[in-house]
Amino acid sequence: MRTLIRNGTVVNAGGALAADVLVDGETIAAVTAPGLFDTADRVIEAQGRYVLPGGIDAHTHMEMPFGGTFSADTFATGTAAAAWGGTTTIIDFAVQTKGTSLLSTLDKWHEKADGRCAVDYGFHMIVSDVNDQSLKEMESCIDAGVNSFKMFMAYPGVFYATDGEILRAMQKATETGSMIMMHAENGIAIDELVAQALASGRTDPVEHGRTRPPELEGEATSRAIQLARVTGAPLYIVHLSARHALEAVAAARNTGQNVFAETCPQYLYLSIEDLAKPDFEGSKYVASPPLRPRDHQADLWRGLRTNDLSVVSTDHCPFCFVDQKELGRGDFSKIPNGMPGVEHRMDLLHQGVVAGELTLARWVEVCSATPARMFGLYGRKGVIAPGADADIVVYDPVARQTISARTHHMNVDYSAYEGMEITGRVETVLSRGSVVVSGGAFHGREGHGRFLSRELSQYLV
Amino acid sequence: MRTLIRNGTVVNAGGALAADVLVDGETIAAVTAPGLFDTADRVIEAQGRYVLPGGIDAHTHMEMPFGGTFSADTFATGTAAAAWGGTTTIIDFAVQTKGTSLLSTLDKWHEKADGRCAVDYGFHMIVSDVNDQSLKEMESCIDAGVNSFKMFMAYPGVFYATDGEILRAMQKATETGSMIMMHAENGIAIDELVAQALASGRTDPVEHGRTRPPELEGEATSRAIQLARVTGAPLYIVHLSARHALEAVAAARNTGQNVFAETCPQYLYLSIEDLAKPDFEGSKYVASPPLRPRDHQADLWRGLRTNDLSVVSTDHCPFCFVDQKELGRGDFSKIPNGMPGVEHRMDLLHQGVVAGELTLARWVEVCSATPARMFGLYGRKGVIAPGADADIVVYDPVARQTISARTHHMNVDYSAYEGMEITGRVETVLSRGSVVVSGGAFHGREGHGRFLSRELSQYLV
Amino acid sequence: MRTLIRNGTVVNAGGALAADVLVDGETIAAVTAPGLFDTADRVIEAQGRYVLPGGIDAHTHMEMPFGGTFSADTFATGTAAAAWGGTTTIIDFAVQTKGTSLLSTLDKWHEKADGRCAVDYGFHMIVSDVNDQSLKEMESCIDAGVNSFKMFMAYPGVFYATDGEILRAMQKATETGSMIMMHAENGIAIDELVAQALASGRTDPVEHGRTRPPELEGEATSRAIQLARVTGAPLYIVHLSARHALEAVAAARNTGQNVFAETCPQYLYLSIEDLAKPDFEGSKYVASPPLRPRDHQADLWRGLRTNDLSVVSTDHCPFCFVDQKELGRGDFSKIPNGMPGVEHRMDLLHQGVVAGELTLARWVEVCSATPARMFGLYGRKGVIAPGADADIVVYDPVARQTISARTHHMNVDYSAYEGMEITGRVETVLSRGSVVVSGGAFHGREGHGRFLSRELSQYLV
Amino acid sequence: MRTLIRNGTVVNAGGALAADVLVDGETIAAVTAPGLFDTADRVIEAQGRYVLPGGIDAHTHMEMPFGGTFSADTFATGTAAAAWGGTTTIIDFAVQTKGTSLLSTLDKWHEKADGRCAVDYGFHMIVSDVNDQSLKEMESCIDAGVNSFKMFMAYPGVFYATDGEILRAMQKATETGSMIMMHAENGIAIDELVAQALASGRTDPVEHGRTRPPELEGEATSRAIQLARVTGAPLYIVHLSARHALEAVAAARNTGQNVFAETCPQYLYLSIEDLAKPDFEGSKYVASPPLRPRDHQADLWRGLRTNDLSVVSTDHCPFCFVDQKELGRGDFSKIPNGMPGVEHRMDLLHQGVVAGELTLARWVEVCSATPARMFGLYGRKGVIAPGADADIVVYDPVARQTISARTHHMNVDYSAYEGMEITGRVETVLSRGSVVVSGGAFHGREGHGRFLSRELSQYLV
Repeated sequence: MRTLIRNGTVVNAGGALAADVLVDGETIAAVTAPGLFDTADRVIEAQGRYVLPGGIDAHTHMEMPFGGTFSADTFATGTAAAAWGGTTTIIDFAVQTKGTSLLSTLDKWHEKADGRCAVDYGFHMIVSDVNDQSLKEMESCIDAGVNSFKMFMAYPGVFYATDGEILRAMQKATETGSMIMMHAENGIAIDELVAQALASGRTDPVEHGRTRPPELEGEATSRAIQLARVTGAPLYIVHLSARHALEAVAAARNTGQNVFAETCPQYLYLSIEDLAKPDFEGSKYVASPPLRPRDHQADLWRGLRTNDLSVVSTDHCPFCFVDQKELGRGDFSKIPNGMPGVEHRMDLLHQGVVAGELTLARWVEVCSATPARMFGLYGRKGVIAPGADADIVVYDPVARQTISARTHHMNVDYSAYEGMEITGRVETVLSRGSVVVSGGAFHGREGHGRFLSRELSQYLV
Repeated sequence: MRTLIRNGTVVNAGGALAADVLVDGETIAAVTAPGLFDTADRVIEAQGRYVLPGGIDAHTHMEMPFGGTFSADTFATGTAAAAWGGTTTIIDFAVQTKGTSLLSTLDKWHEKADGRCAVDYGFHMIVSDVNDQSLKEMESCIDAGVNSFKMFMAYPGVFYATDGEILRAMQKATETGSMIMMHAENGIAIDELVAQALASGRTDPVEHGRTRPPELEGEATSRAIQLARVTGAPLYIVHLSARHALEAVAAARNTGQNVFAETCPQYLYLSIEDLAKPDFEGSKYVASPPLRPRDHQADLWRGLRTNDLSVVSTDHCPFCFVDQKELGRGDFSKIPNGMPGVEHRMDLLHQGVVAGELTLARWVEVCSATPARMFGLYGRKGVIAPGADADIVVYDPVARQTISARTHHMNVDYSAYEGMEITGRVETVLSRGSVVVSGGAFHGREGHGRFLSRELSQYLV
Repeated sequence: MRTLIRNGTVVNAGGALAADVLVDGETIAAVTAPGLFDTADRVIEAQGRYVLPGGIDAHTHMEMPFGGTFSADTFATGTAAAAWGGTTTIIDFAVQTKGTSLLSTLDKWHEKADGRCAVDYGFHMIVSDVNDQSLKEMESCIDAGVNSFKMFMAYPGVFYATDGEILRAMQKATETGSMIMMHAENGIAIDELVAQALASGRTDPVEHGRTRPPELEGEATSRAIQLARVTGAPLYIVHLSARHALEAVAAARNTGQNVFAETCPQYLYLSIEDLAKPDFEGSKYVASPPLRPRDHQADLWRGLRTNDLSVVSTDHCPFCFVDQKELGRGDFSKIPNGMPGVEHRMDLLHQGVVAGELTLARWVEVCSATPARMFGLYGRKGVIAPGADADIVVYDPVARQTISARTHHMNVDYSAYEGMEITGRVETVLSRGSVVVSGGAFHGREGHGRFLSRELSQYLV
Repeated sequence: MRTLIRNGTVVNAGGALAADVLVDGETIAAVTAPGLFDTADRVIEAQGRYVLPGGIDAHTHMEMPFGGTFSADTFATGTAAAAWGGTTTIIDFAVQTKGTSLLSTLDKWHEKADGRCAVDYGFHMIVSDVNDQSLKEMESCIDAGVNSFKMFMAYPGVFYATDGEILRAMQKATETGSMIMMHAENGIAIDELVAQALASGRTDPVEHGRTRPPELEGEATSRAIQLARVTGAPLYIVHLSARHALEAVAAARNTGQNVFAETCPQYLYLSIEDLAKPDFEGSKYVASPPLRPRDHQADLWRGLRTNDLSVVSTDHCPFCFVDQKELGRGDFSKIPNGMPGVEHRMDLLHQGVVAGELTLARWVEVCSATPARMFGLYGRKGVIAPGADADIVVYDPVARQTISARTHHMNVDYSAYEGMEITGRVETVLSRGSVVVSGGAFHGREGHGRFLSRELSQYLV
């Protein structure tokens, strides 16, 4: 079956052009001058619309176990919400439990996700337990299409890796050409500050922010960069939130070191003032690293323009306010860490285009093309070009919408952006040639999404 | 007439893909999965070849008056040589003589070039005489498709502009959205050093390099950046040669300022040791800024990777050794400044791909896509995409060739790269759909090339 | 005759100690444990007082010709005011007029100053006309005890030196071990901004500040540093006012380059808001570089602490509001440039001690010891030590005073610090062993002060 | 009893002057013009000699337990050797053993040192065990005159403190105005590299250097600085050896943060090439941080000039080659860490004066005045001034000597500088008014030296 998307403005990372897109089966067959083909089995009129490669959210946590509970979206609900928002690929994190193997972890995550997803998905592997076996298993993971390994400088006793463990994993990454992803906060120092806050009766959600100062994100980022330099490993800093960390990344990138970073919409739009909202409302904004003072936002937008920040992901990890966030009443350290966001990334970043922060092409680059390249999917994903999967979003740049928990599709009882007005809206979404969203309705199905066995990062060839 | 280029690897700045390209008349009609079309009026088989957007050389000087002589390539010979080397667009410099108007200058350059070029061409305007009239005429130039204005911090008494004049021109650039291009060397200090060298009997070509130390390029680059900051003007540093200047550009770009820079192949491959060749051979390498100590080269390659250097142009400005370069025997300051290069840029930079300095996509980006965007041609030039001009190079990445004045097509009696062995070679070149080079023969014609009225820089939207 | 200053706290740049000071004739004979000597011809009781080396103001302009008028203090009135304020040495500027020789200039300044001064004095030489003769004469100046040469990157047509001229003078400084002092503002660009302001009817004093943006001080400072690097010359940036310039100085100093800078009290305490005072009051604050936005002040204080700023001088150059400043009504560019200050430097900087900005020892260092070392006077001046000239200030650290034109001793009809309350006050001042101020009365005399033939800078040995 | 040191050149941190020094009992009574006093009970002729404040070595380890052995100098032998070399004060480290208290540790060190030392001595406290009790005891230590607390980011399992522990100790330092001293190497990562080296059979002394790369010193230094920033604590980096660490310190100091650093003579004169000497000779040079590649030396000398390095100490920690260093044959990680040096610091740094690396005054500053200020002794130590302890060195600047284990006085069987020729030599040494070295003989005695209860750092007032 052939689908023709016609009269739209095709936007790739390289720029925008007036062109028609011919889809044949699951892939794109041609990008043509308007009107070269005049018919097909199905024709989607895109006059006045952008035709985008589907968004790629390289940082999600569906059904993630955290402190006795689970993040509220399943792979089914989370990927459907992603599709609603124009994201047609997610890369989620398989989470090794200490004492278990990486491969069994991968099996477990396949079990959760396989046959459940509305759009395509891949995995990163969280390495919680560095030892001879798990280092060896990194190779098997790569063979299984999972070649990016996340480590934590935060969360002692849970995910925390020592600098020696990080060093060993980085050596393996260098050896295999794979990527180390880093949660860069000095968790050891932070835990001390947290303990001091609790001991002195400072228990409100805002203390989550106060006990994780930006200097300690900057410090950990610098440290990760030095360890990467010593070992030669490529490094990807996840959810960078603070100017201090950005400066460290920029300095390393100036030297040509393979250091990359992502930020998230919450750091671009929200601030520690949200964490300070009364009546425990602040708990809705608890994630790590924490929301920062408002003046960090301009630096992050600038970082996106200068390419010191390469990617925008969501770190989608929703916990409901009721029953979940509430676990931390009276002790902010018990609040499940994470915020919902997978549905709104494309819209929120388009808002940056509207505000003049990003160009149209850069929007597509940070939301789709670069994550594709970073994680070995480009060509197949991340671009409107012949041979690519027909993951396509038809986007109406002038429609208006208001974000609200009442209307969103994520399985969580609040929105971090409640009431925010957005210009632009996803109109039609194709996933591998199938229409999954159109006319304000969901036409996708659980299990349509396939696991993506990924190539090595295309920034490192 | 339709032309099908099939089975090749299409390389754009965004990446490479296996695809066929359908040309209809002067433009590209479609990029398709291999085999979607199986025939056309003309079929070019590109199996094992790269299919590239034609090169754009944003810095050439054909028939340029300099010290009583002219650069040796006419628009006819120079653009034919460009075509031979896979460059299908040049942007040359119209040179205002003090006391004349910008528009009459433009007329003069149209006279030289119109009806003579083998490939498409545009103009930048060199503003030698800043006054109320010429500032006003900048607007007319923009209307006439010339929206980039070059100024000199070097060459006092000839092209040199004072900081006050630069400031005024920059203000006009800010007002009109046009671009200031800068030759950034402190010519006032340099002239003093030159006079001292001559006075003390140091007259050999290598003194050209010694009297123009890299600190004075770094200084002028910093100064231009500050003036741009004060006025808000976009700034493009031409022919950046020294680490000192690169550091200034990188620092400015980190802040998000609209500062860009090009380097040239000669700074990537040659060094001040060439300037020191005996028997006046060094004169062949006299250009400004001068060739630098060899250790600057690695920094420049790194700058190309980090995008602190955005473009590679040639500064093609050939003077024959016999009769022209020889004017400076006994007085290096009389050696005509300039080197030939328009023919070899694509090959020399492909050599960087072979050496692992650049990726394939980055090669195309710095040689074609970015110059197109920088100077308002992208979409029409700089990309293999539907709607674009069919300026296409079929490139054999494994062929071997040796650069030599005996075989090159530039109208100059020496090569700066004599005897250098290159992997890769241009096989077929289309200019706006017409085959101009193929089978080792030139099929182009004078006058095929059209003047390009350019849009404003696409980096500044 | 012997004088004993007893029971005070002697404060040198190295620290404070309880000690007595024995003066014998014009010099200090001993610094002793309290009570070692119990009598002398004259005993000055200093219990609860600081005993300081007399202040050295390395930047004053007495009777300076400027735009048809003269700065309002003569050497007689200016040095008396200096003494009142605890400054016992000034270094003034001999100003070469274009077309005249350096030595005749020096003669002229000796004529003005010799036999007139209340305290000791030296000269710097302003080189306005760089040519073979004046470069040669720099050597004679050094022989005559004047080894610091000031040049201007501002004031085109008056003092402005081209980069080539600066380069030549710097080469001579390198050759002779002398110092180049630089007024670092890009006067060429500034003059253009001034002309634009006047042309558009912006004529108020505040425009003086607006047309001299801090970026253009930063630029010129960087440029001077690069020229110094190329030539190997030591460089002293006068009256640094802007963060942008400070950053350039700090970067150079980190590399170990011989770059030094002074700031002035007006940049530490006043701001562009003063320039914007209504009713032409702003004219009182017109000096170059201009007063900056208030947020530069904290950076300057920090620079004094980190020693990126080495010296505090006054740039004392008073013009009366009536008849002098008023020359610029309706055209800010006609306002004589300069502010009074020689009398209040010690007090204003002590206020920095009171506010916790500087330590006691650092106060003495920036006001006395470092200017002495910088300009070849240390040992003789700048320290309380045996063999040094007995230039001594007994300072009451807890007295209170209010600065006012009604009570100051400078020959100018306003104070830039009118009404400012100060903690601390000069009580007794000795110049070469003679009491010149004590008991609220002036006991000095015209002609007591001697010309100081200075050694080369002691930072450059 | 009065002693007169006459006709010498008194050198203080502030400069040199021709002056006589009168000592009365244990302290200096006066510094006078030459000849003011013409006799005394004892007269020391110092014509052609420097008269210096006695050296202060702020980093020694006498009788230090390390891996089952002890450093070879006792307080008796070590302080006598110090005196021979012109060092009249040492500050040694009391070493808390995990599980013991700080105060009992202090008692233990007093037991070792009291009544044994030839010159005055103080203690820093090594905090190995951070807990509520030891933090509380820091206050008692301060009351007992020990207000500088050293921590280790290296040596996991022995002295290593976690970032959380460091943070707590820093908070206590901020609260009390005391100083944190840091051994800044990332011991966790280093231990991994060490284990890898041993596992792969790389066991020679040079591996000590290879497994402790300078990046990991730079990293730890940056981290310590960030933790200091978060807590507001003053920070003193001990034995800085690498350019990477120096850059971090310089950047922090530019911001005005209270960060200081010392380097040691071995890093200025020796290099990793010494570690690579054959026949296990390299073991003589094993200390941590390790000797670095030779090109770091110029940066360290520059750092001393720019004051980014404030102090030169020795980290004197001698282990005999026979029986002690030999413990590490076949396993470099078993080589006792440390080198002898307390005797030669003044001479080695004077060699820097001879070589033009430092001025005379800076020599005295980094070896005596600054350590005195840094550790609360200035006024009493570190300066030739009335009231100060008469710790005085008469130094012959032109004498020649050759360093050798055959002639040195340290209790160790080798010299790290064997055969090195030095210009300059200590001639006479006074400790609190008593001659302890003169005429090539030792006149001191065990127990003359007194414990120094120190004030808080004078850089932090």
